[in-house]
Formats: sequence, C-alpha cells, structure tokens
Amino acid sequence: MQATVVTIGDELLIGQVVNTNAAWVAQRLTDLGIEVAGLVTVPDMSEAIQSELGRAIAASDIVIVTGGLGPTHDDITLSAVAEYFGVDVEFDADLFERIRKRFERRGLTVPESNRTQAMVPTGFEPLPNPVGTAPGLWYEFESDGRPKRLVVLPGVPMEMRTLMTDEVLPRLSRQERLPPIVYRTLLTAGIGESNLQEEIGPMEAYLDAGLKLAYLPGVRGVRLRLTAYPGRDVEALKRLDELAEEIKVRAGKYIYGEGEDKLEAVVGRMLRESGLKVALAESCTGGRIAGRLTDIAGSSDYFLGGVVAYDNTVKVEVLGVSSETIETHGAVSRHVALEMADGVRHRLKADIGLSSTGIMGPGGGSEEKPVGTVWIGYADGQSAGAVKIMLAGDRDGNREQATTIALNLVRLRLLKRKH
Amino acid sequence: MQATVVTIGDELLIGQVVNTNAAWVAQRLTDLGIEVAGLVTVPDMSEAIQSELGRAIAASDIVIVTGGLGPTHDDITLSAVAEYFGVDVEFDADLFERIRKRFERRGLTVPESNRTQAMVPTGFEPLPNPVGTAPGLWYEFESDGRPKRLVVLPGVPMEMRTLMTDEVLPRLSRQERLPPIVYRTLLTAGIGESNLQEEIGPMEAYLDAGLKLAYLPGVRGVRLRLTAYPGRDVEALKRLDELAEEIKVRAGKYIYGEGEDKLEAVVGRMLRESGLKVALAESCTGGRIAGRLTDIAGSSDYFLGGVVAYDNTVKVEVLGVSSETIETHGAVSRHVALEMADGVRHRLKADIGLSSTGIMGPGGGSEEKPVGTVWIGYADGQSAGAVKIMLAGDRDGNREQATTIALNLVRLRLLKRKH
Repeated sequence: MQATVVTIGDELLIGQVVNTNAAWVAQRLTDLGIEVAGLVTVPDMSEAIQSELGRAIAASDIVIVTGGLGPTHDDITLSAVAEYFGVDVEFDADLFERIRKRFERRGLTVPESNRTQAMVPTGFEPLPNPVGTAPGLWYEFESDGRPKRLVVLPGVPMEMRTLMTDEVLPRLSRQERLPPIVYRTLLTAGIGESNLQEEIGPMEAYLDAGLKLAYLPGVRGVRLRLTAYPGRDVEALKRLDELAEEIKVRAGKYIYGEGEDKLEAVVGRMLRESGLKVALAESCTGGRIAGRLTDIAGSSDYFLGGVVAYDNTVKVEVLGVSSETIETHGAVSRHVALEMADGVRHRLKADIGLSSTGIMGPGGGSEEKPVGTVWIGYADGQSAGAVKIMLAGDRDGNREQATTIALNLVRLRLLKRKH
Repeated sequence: MQATVVTIGDELLIGQVVNTNAAWVAQRLTDLGIEVAGLVTVPDMSEAIQSELGRAIAASDIVIVTGGLGPTHDDITLSAVAEYFGVDVEFDADLFERIRKRFERRGLTVPESNRTQAMVPTGFEPLPNPVGTAPGLWYEFESDGRPKRLVVLPGVPMEMRTLMTDEVLPRLSRQERLPPIVYRTLLTAGIGESNLQEEIGPMEAYLDAGLKLAYLPGVRGVRLRLTAYPGRDVEALKRLDELAEEIKVRAGKYIYGEGEDKLEAVVGRMLRESGLKVALAESCTGGRIAGRLTDIAGSSDYFLGGVVAYDNTVKVEVLGVSSETIETHGAVSRHVALEMADGVRHRLKADIGLSSTGIMGPGGGSEEKPVGTVWIGYADGQSAGAVKIMLAGDRDGNREQATTIALNLVRLRLLKRKH
C-alpha cells in the first residue's frame, strides 16, 4: 500500500515556507503502515496540479493533496481536481450552512467569497472543517482496475492536521490491514559517521529486504535508523531487536538514547539520579552548553549555573584561573580547561565542573592551534581530565558539536562513576 | 529558466526529518530569477532516483539533487546517477588527497570507507567540500537538444549550503541573465504582528501586481517582506524603495535591520562603535543571550562574558544580589533584575550589564506570576531600568523571544545614548 503526498503552493516553491505539512502527513501514514513513496510540491497552476495528480495516481494507491483550497482567487485546487476527473462542481447547501453558522457564532456575516468554500466536485465526499472554512474532500475511485483514494485538504497546518486526525486517518486505518513498518533510531554522540561504521563493522549478515540500517549524520551526533518491514519478512520485528542489541554490543558507549531522546535530557536524568549538581565554565561555546541544559524543564534540580568566561579577565577574576597558566600555555590548552572546570566547581559550590575553551573560527587560528581546536575540561572532586577535539565545520557547526561532545563527556564520566 | 529540486532520503519520506534543504535551495534559486517548478522527495532507492531524474531533466533546465552522498552503504545517489547516465565511476586521486588532508589536520587517519567519497562519475566535475568529506558534483549536458545542468550535493544542511553558496550559485548566476524578482526584508523586534500592522497602517495605495508586502511572524521578530516584480511593472524597483522608506517612517524604531542581518550582529556593531563592553546575568534565558552574542565572530571585542545564575545561590554569591531582595520581591521581579544587571556589570568590570529573570514553563507559574512572566534588566552607569514582558509561547519559544527582547533592549538604549 503506497501513498504520494502532493503539496500545492507557490510559497513553498520560492522557499518562503518550509514544508512541515508533508513531513507531518508522511509520519502519520508511516505509523499506519502505509509506505510513502514520494513527496511532491507543485505551484498554484491548474496544469501542474493535474499533471502531478495523474502521476501520483498512477504510482500509488493513496494520494493526499494539501493546499490551495481557500476562498481567494489564487486557490485553484478544487477546480483543477474537478477538471482532472472531468466532473462538475456543485454547491452544497448543508456545507454552506455549517460555514454560515461558524461566522454567526463569531458575530460575523459570511463573506460572499466564502460561497466557494461550499463547492464540491460531483461524487466527492466533503469532510467538514471544524477549525476553518475550507472543507476537505474524500474520493474513492478505480484506475487501471485498482481501487484508489484521493484526499484533498486545506494547507493551513492546524486545519490540515485536524482533518487528518479526525477524518482521514480513522478511515484509512479502518480500510487498511497492513503490518506497519517499524523503526528504531539509536542516537550516538562523540563519534563521526565513518568511525562509527568502522566501530560497528559489517552488518550485511543482519540486513536484507526485511531489515535496513541507515546512518544519519548531524551536528548533534550520528543517528542510526533501523527499519523492519514485517510485511516482507514475518521475522523482521524479532530481528530488529536482535540488530539493535548487536549494535549496542559493538558501539554501546557511543549510544546515549533512542528515538526522540535528547542528550541534554539524558545527562539531566543521570545527574538527577546521582544527586550531583553541575556548573559550567564556557569560553568557546559561549553559553550554548548552559542553553542546551536549560532547554529541559526542571533542569534547575541539577544545574546551578555557569560562567561564560569569554574574556580572559573573566577566566582569571571570576573563575580563578591563574594568569601564568594562560601566559604559559595559552587560553586554549589542557591546563586552562582544567583550571576553568575546577574553578567554576569551587566558585559555584557544584559537584561537577565542566569547561570549554577553543577556537571556533573563522579567524583566530594559528599553525599550532588551528581553527577547530577545542579543549573540554571536567572536574568532579574524585577525578579531573580534559579532552582535545579537532572540529572541521563552520563556526556554528563547531559550537554545536563542541557542546554535544561536552555534554557527552559528562554522560561518559557519570557512567564510569556508576561502575 | 526552470529548476527542479530533488531531495533523497527515507528519513524525509517517513516524516522523521522536515525538508528544510528544499526550501533553502528554492529560495536561493528564486533570488537568482530561476523559477522553481517542482520540489520532489524520493527514497534511497536507485530505481526511484533514476526515474525521478528522468522526469526532472525532461521538465526543467536545472536539476538540483541533495542527499545520499555519504560514505556508508545506504548512500546510493552517486551510483544511481552514474547508472542513469550510463557512465563509470572513477577514483579521483586529487579529491582523495584533499579528504585525507582533512582528516590529517585533525590528527586522524582517513577511514577506508572514505575512499568512496573520492569516486566521481565520468564527465562530472567534483566540487570539493570544505566542511565535510562528500564532494558535490556539477554536470553539463544536452537532452532533447537543450542544454541542461545537474547538480548533486550532500544532504547535511551545512555542507549543502556551503557548496551552494561557494560553488553552485556563482556558476548559475554567471550563466543566467534573467530579470530577477527583487526582495527586501525589513526585520523588526519588540512588537507583535498585529500591533506592527496597526503601527504601519494601510498600505494599499502602494501595492499592486508589481509590488507586494507580507508580514512573516517568528520568535525572533516579525519580518516584513517587500517584493518587486520588475517584469510586471518597470517602475516596481523604484517604488520598492519608496515603500521601504514609508514603512521606516511609520515604524522605524522597531526595525533593526534588513535581509540577512542578525539582531545580535547589529547590537554587536553598535557596541563596537560605542566602545562599550557588555556582560550578562542570565537566569531564565539560561545562556541563550550569551549564545546569540557569541554566534558572531569577533564578539570578544565587546562581549566580556556572563554569569548564568540559574540557582538563587549563584545570584547572591557570584552576582551580589541581596538575599533580602529575593525574599521580599521574589527572584522574578524588577528589583532582582536590576540587581543582577548592576551586579554583573561590577563583577565583570563591564560598561553595560544586561539581565534576565523569569518563568519559562511549563511549570513554576503562580496566579501573581504566571508562566511567561519575564523581567529584563539593564544598567550602564548612566541609567538603569527593567522591563516586564509577558510571553505566551512554549518553553523554547519563550526563551528565544525573551532573548530577542533583551538584545533589542540594548539596541534601543544605545540608540538613546547616541541622541
């Protein structure tokens, strides 16, 4: 059972709006076990809409169209769909009454332009819109001897989501009886894509049409997506879990979570469980580690605060880093990272001090310390240490990666303390 | 001159990732005056990629493909493209040497799997990737007697954007000579969409087919997009500037910049010009103001550092806020905001102290101080003050909005000092 999602709108083609609708619809269809074969965006032009309708209907069983159903002159989806199927568009008095009442409840008279919102192509079933005026449309038909379904929805995200949730998804799930495709996503930090692949090693023995593995790199770490197709192999679900376990055996220390887990939330949970409080001394990450930690509601339970020691005087005067250390080794050095971590730990009376100092670019590098050189320091009273990382992205990517590696360092240290 | 953007990746079809790449590329092509005729997403399957390549090449002059160029087994774009054109894939020794050096600079050995990153289809020109390993590809050819261009880029947004900006867009703009659509975007902060609209008032007299105005709200402020279509009206470009001037007359104090300007860069420029140094005392923004300021390269010229005073003990012991003030007025109060701003100013020997204290949610609110209550404090030796804001978003949106308003407060104060 395959679906194509067609989004209509010039605003998408000029890049003014990011197409969140397509991803949302795709995720809901996937959850039902319907395979999304393609996502397509076309302009508000009848010819383009009709041409894409033809392709999408030929290629898939279900076609979901969103956008271009509003009351203004540039909304032409309805007429394009009717023209494609060669049917008339009829005024639906019941539908118009619902729209009229919607306006009345708000003390308004329905504008004349809204009569178009009650027009329905012959043979289509209107799906009343509880949060807007444009109704959705549901159409079942045959093409090339196969049953097909066409769904047309407004493009306003809230209206589209409401109609999908209330009307479309229940209908599809009643009609389909498909074993859903199942995903697991293992989240890693502190290792690049190719090194992770070497760490995990060949996985061909596990993979086939029923089971797939994909590496998805990003500045917050590489995600491993495992996909099982129980429709292709009844053992796939069992083998999915075996694959996940095998990957954990081979690369477990890099895996901090699964699915929608966030590294800062995982670290936060570990801190809360351990009863330890953390403080930060950030130079090159400039507040980003604090920002990530405090993204999590309730982080005040384990995060005391931090010092953004951008200027060296702040490192010396607030954190107590020795001027001599800075002079001898430079601000970007193991020694300064260690003194910063230890300094903030004492200054803020924390259990754990975490620090960053580095050169994020684009300027400021030297032969000895090129752009991308970063030291992350850690001190918790029992142990202290600093790791050097060499980053190769732009300023923003480097800052985000250094932040991720710093948070991951706390995770690794807390794991060690446990054992 | 028409283009199709093809993004490749199962993660997009299951809705795990929102396709921001397509919108970014579409916007850049539109800016060059190239009409984007379609955006298409296909799975990591050779057959689907080749079939879409055929359609896109037939339908447009320029095809931009992103995704599936990495070093792992699920990256099949390169082989699919080569197979489509019936050409071999060759090892490019120069390219591999660049990749090897990239690893070497970071003290690493290039993994064997990265040899695939130096494979180039015969006749294609590799575009070296300065921020990653996968190169882009540029290919000029003829189809149906018309010149065509195919561009293949990695899917990691930072890498795709760098290659587009450095290599692809300059080539395309050298080759095309089209009357471009012209945009101006005025950036505002510190005012909501509907209040801004009231401030600006009716603009119908200025607008027609040749000139358009759109309000684009976001957590970093409302953007005003002005669009001129010189192809529809030869006067449009001149009238565009008149419209921008009129808007500045009506709402100038809210406008901090234009186009790609960033508020933190504008504030940074003003600080640099004034010779004043700023320090931060952040509670509810948790390091985000520092993060925004230090996003800008060279910010060390005017940003000394800050204290993330999440816990009240940090407010008292590091910033010198009086415990009595906290007890009497609560941590979220005008008094504490003022003492934080003044405290960090003294502690870090800065000219300007800026502070935030508030309740970001979802928990922690009370009847008297509901979630969304935030105080921003400011002190510069000449004057001091605090503003209260009431935010209504989620935790993340509230934090970003409070950060924007805090930065904007510095801008407004510096403007006043000037006059």
